[in-house]
Amino acid sequence: MSEEDFSSSDSVRSAKELPYAQTFKFEGPFELERGDSLPEVTVVYETYGELNERRDNAILVCHALSGDSHVAAHDEDDDPGWWEAVVGPGKPIDTDRYFVVCPNVLGGCRGSTGPNSANPANGQPYGRDFPVVTVGDIVGVQARLVDHLGIDQLLAVVGGSLGGQMTIHWATQYPDRIAGAIAVATSPRLTSQGLAFDVIGRNAILRDPNFANGQYYGQESPTVGLAIARMLGHITYLSREAMTQKFDADRLRARHVPSEFETKFSVGSYLAYQGDRFVERFDANSYLTISMALDLFDMGETPEKLAESFAPSTCRWLVLSFSSDWLFPPFQSQQIVDALIANDKPVSYCNVQSDCGHDAFLLENEIAIYGEMMRAFLLNLEPSPPQSPHPDSVDPTESVHVLTSIFHRRHRLDYQTILELLPPDASVLDLGCGNGGLSYQLRQREHDRLMGVELDEWAILECIRRGLDVVQADLNQGLDNFADGQFDFVVLSRTLQTVTDVERVLAEMLRVGKRGIVTFPNLGFRQLRRQLAEDGRAPRVEAEEGFKWYNTPNVRFFTIADFDELCEDKGYTVHKRIALNTQQDRLIEDDPNTNADIAIAVLSR
Amino acid sequence: MSEEDFSSSDSVRSAKELPYAQTFKFEGPFELERGDSLPEVTVVYETYGELNERRDNAILVCHALSGDSHVAAHDEDDDPGWWEAVVGPGKPIDTDRYFVVCPNVLGGCRGSTGPNSANPANGQPYGRDFPVVTVGDIVGVQARLVDHLGIDQLLAVVGGSLGGQMTIHWATQYPDRIAGAIAVATSPRLTSQGLAFDVIGRNAILRDPNFANGQYYGQESPTVGLAIARMLGHITYLSREAMTQKFDADRLRARHVPSEFETKFSVGSYLAYQGDRFVERFDANSYLTISMALDLFDMGETPEKLAESFAPSTCRWLVLSFSSDWLFPPFQSQQIVDALIANDKPVSYCNVQSDCGHDAFLLENEIAIYGEMMRAFLLNLEPSPPQSPHPDSVDPTESVHVLTSIFHRRHRLDYQTILELLPPDASVLDLGCGNGGLSYQLRQREHDRLMGVELDEWAILECIRRGLDVVQADLNQGLDNFADGQFDFVVLSRTLQTVTDVERVLAEMLRVGKRGIVTFPNLGFRQLRRQLAEDGRAPRVEAEEGFKWYNTPNVRFFTIADFDELCEDKGYTVHKRIALNTQQDRLIEDDPNTNADIAIAVLSR
Repeated sequence: MSEEDFSSSDSVRSAKELPYAQTFKFEGPFELERGDSLPEVTVVYETYGELNERRDNAILVCHALSGDSHVAAHDEDDDPGWWEAVVGPGKPIDTDRYFVVCPNVLGGCRGSTGPNSANPANGQPYGRDFPVVTVGDIVGVQARLVDHLGIDQLLAVVGGSLGGQMTIHWATQYPDRIAGAIAVATSPRLTSQGLAFDVIGRNAILRDPNFANGQYYGQESPTVGLAIARMLGHITYLSREAMTQKFDADRLRARHVPSEFETKFSVGSYLAYQGDRFVERFDANSYLTISMALDLFDMGETPEKLAESFAPSTCRWLVLSFSSDWLFPPFQSQQIVDALIANDKPVSYCNVQSDCGHDAFLLENEIAIYGEMMRAFLLNLEPSPPQSPHPDSVDPTESVHVLTSIFHRRHRLDYQTILELLPPDASVLDLGCGNGGLSYQLRQREHDRLMGVELDEWAILECIRRGLDVVQADLNQGLDNFADGQFDFVVLSRTLQTVTDVERVLAEMLRVGKRGIVTFPNLGFRQLRRQLAEDGRAPRVEAEEGFKWYNTPNVRFFTIADFDELCEDKGYTVHKRIALNTQQDRLIEDDPNTNADIAIAVLSR
Repeated sequence: MSEEDFSSSDSVRSAKELPYAQTFKFEGPFELERGDSLPEVTVVYETYGELNERRDNAILVCHALSGDSHVAAHDEDDDPGWWEAVVGPGKPIDTDRYFVVCPNVLGGCRGSTGPNSANPANGQPYGRDFPVVTVGDIVGVQARLVDHLGIDQLLAVVGGSLGGQMTIHWATQYPDRIAGAIAVATSPRLTSQGLAFDVIGRNAILRDPNFANGQYYGQESPTVGLAIARMLGHITYLSREAMTQKFDADRLRARHVPSEFETKFSVGSYLAYQGDRFVERFDANSYLTISMALDLFDMGETPEKLAESFAPSTCRWLVLSFSSDWLFPPFQSQQIVDALIANDKPVSYCNVQSDCGHDAFLLENEIAIYGEMMRAFLLNLEPSPPQSPHPDSVDPTESVHVLTSIFHRRHRLDYQTILELLPPDASVLDLGCGNGGLSYQLRQREHDRLMGVELDEWAILECIRRGLDVVQADLNQGLDNFADGQFDFVVLSRTLQTVTDVERVLAEMLRVGKRGIVTFPNLGFRQLRRQLAEDGRAPRVEAEEGFKWYNTPNVRFFTIADFDELCEDKGYTVHKRIALNTQQDRLIEDDPNTNADIAIAVLSR
């Protein structure tokens, strides 16, 4: 267990005053969603960077349950903020480029109106008289602040966890006021498991004898209950793997921390420390208020309800989850993505591989992926995205990382053929899109809607850099998130031979696309037949260059005749068959099953 | 949320007296592992079935944290026990066949000596003066009870969760006294995450003002702290999926339960109910005592330490985990299995697919697998296992469920050839062993050690019914749990073509086996060459009968020449090559790459 393990990435690192905080106060009544109202509201916020003349470079950052307005340090002497990794000059949310605003939430205890604020009715702290507030109320106050700052449309709203739910609310309830939404490690509503943890945390506070029905100000406060709630939170922010790494090797060598909590085990001393520190800076009533806002947030349970909830959105979306996050598990980000796809909204999605759990979005570990995705997404939201490619980017017509792509060489015949097969106004879904080479070309034309599906996260980053919409998915798992006939064309270029579940992938592409375009290497090609018949060796198609039979990405081997039989068996209509000899760069009319190395078929079910 | 959701499988269902409980009391001092001692110890236990004349049909069942001696109902009028699904007449632990003993643990509060017992020193309840007890102490008391019952060797010790840790202790510290160990949903030591939950639960109790340093008997007890600890426990016993199924659809429609805890959400009303019920029947000091025993249990962190800890064991093992158990996650059962394998101990293992979380071992849902595995394992522990095959069993020479097995037909030439290649005294590991047909044949000979690896849980059940040792593993993930040269022979029969990571599987088999025997279909077989060269169709090997190119389990296609080249590239020595034409039932000497349909190679690295 290292020193660093005793600082929490989710914590505000200092309870000092916030010297750069600004205050905006407005008179009410401010009507709340649950029926109550507040006579006046104060918002404490911090800003970074400069608002440009067009006032169109503002980014609102929304904090999570225990955060505050101090998202990053303002200068070298300032304390680091809770998202120091992401926000600052030259960082993914680049304060040299954008005007960043981060307000403390309504109901908080770090300056904005909350339960510890004086109730104008009696001059005493609200305590438990503070009304129930929702994510909608929190965002409503943020919107007033944005008005106050003279910003009509935010370039983006960005938030993780509870802040991600604020982002969702902005995008769906104030669609005209944001160009982009970055929703990180969040969910359309908490899982019942997550809800259960919050319930227990609140029970610990509410049943602490010092809680005194919330009127504990000026006396002993319910520090035991609040500390227990916080300890619980910490377990849920970390993955099991992360806890193992931090605490397992020396589980009995607890660090000495003076605490009235159990400090027997290494992890116990950590929890005791975190619990004790938290109660120094956080108010139990705010914890109750904000955790209830989190628990009440609900965009719907069913796919239908979710689709309805996300329908009003008009902005572009970047949704990010982390593979080991079990508090806001990836399938919930996928639900957001599915709801957006159901509405034909522009969305990119990546489930970033990480061992860091929910905390991953606050840490440096995976920032090369998630941070750069944010940066690229934001750049492409700008009215005139910078034209020069990102220094790390590859040539858009080249393919990296994705060995099965058709686009290994420029100006190939099969590449041209696919482009010609796609009417210029068609909507196109590109399965296994790699770096987005096809979509990048298509975007020069008038296509209604272009979208890619890809598994590799670096390839997804490239797509986002090109301003393309791409969602992460494993084709073998199907395309449940897409509706029947949602695209005019679904393209599967030299990918079919790499998927195990061929039937499912084909069925799905023909369900989602009115037409499917499949290209595949033809095992019947004369040269390949000869390899087996004469040399007694497993045939190797050209796309397998550099591979052997035992490590090729290809796991299905078939000829044009085999493929035709499958289509016949399944009752698929083949509208067009094109056979190519790409080595000779020519179309094949005569005996394609022998003379073509690549086949292209336009299908429908 | 159904009625049933308000009963917990982990709970003792009634706080009534236990009318069938028996008492055994012995005088001390009973020395404890942590240095203290008890002047006298009482054990409350229940028994089921009859001890036979040889006194060799006794099974000790160990309960988990909050269980007690009442493992099952004694008759129709009796309350159900905590393992009603598993223990009883005709059930997996068949009380018509076995004498089942279930004692309440030392430190408990259901009759056995614990913190609520009178301290002979002063006649007052021990309270916090009750010493720290370990799993070793609990087992020590159980051993005294077993002595008292006149049982030299238990047929088996069976336990789940904390009870599984007692089972581990029995097997490693009292090796002569048990013939078999069934360790279910348990671990060699708790994860740091699991430990953290226990720490928080204890903190909630210890910091409850009613705790009164443990001397709360006869006054208000720390019910809030204990209830909170219990609520936390409930989250960890259920999987996220199970909680979603129980509570998600009507999350806001909480059930009305009179409670001082929050009952706003459906899951909240469940937790409030469970917390309130638990404090009626359980003592907070026992909770502290037993959860600490659980937390202190530690067979070691590293594979080396674990191997050392399990070395003394001499019994046969059945280890079972459940895929969605995150409190005692499957990888920890795998650690137990690995430690046993490292010591060449007889062990079978299955990670049972389940959505039910840790609770799965108490529920009916997956009992057709885990219950039947227990039953089969116990039957094979008996001095003369019943000879008649299980009614559900298949003919041992037939293969079910495992499509890639070589043993599709009896008396095949390749089958005979493998048997002849294996010296009668060799130790053999059979990768992808299916129902254990090969091992079953080999067992008739004098093989030193036989073991199978299989993925399919139904096939594993068949192997266990045949009394074979089989562990579940995905060959693509390697064989990390086996040591270099641990077996004389590792057999991979008609399986290589189904694994994606051919290099790894081959390397692993030749690391673990002094020799490897591989059989595979030869893509170079004349008939297959013709299918491609003349018919223009993907060749289909015989083992793929019933499959098409798009759904065959085979994902690698190669000829004898291809395989030979791989061996050469890797520097493997081929000691023997045998080529067969199984259609004609003959050995092939001439041009095997053309004339053989099956190749057999004996290799080493």
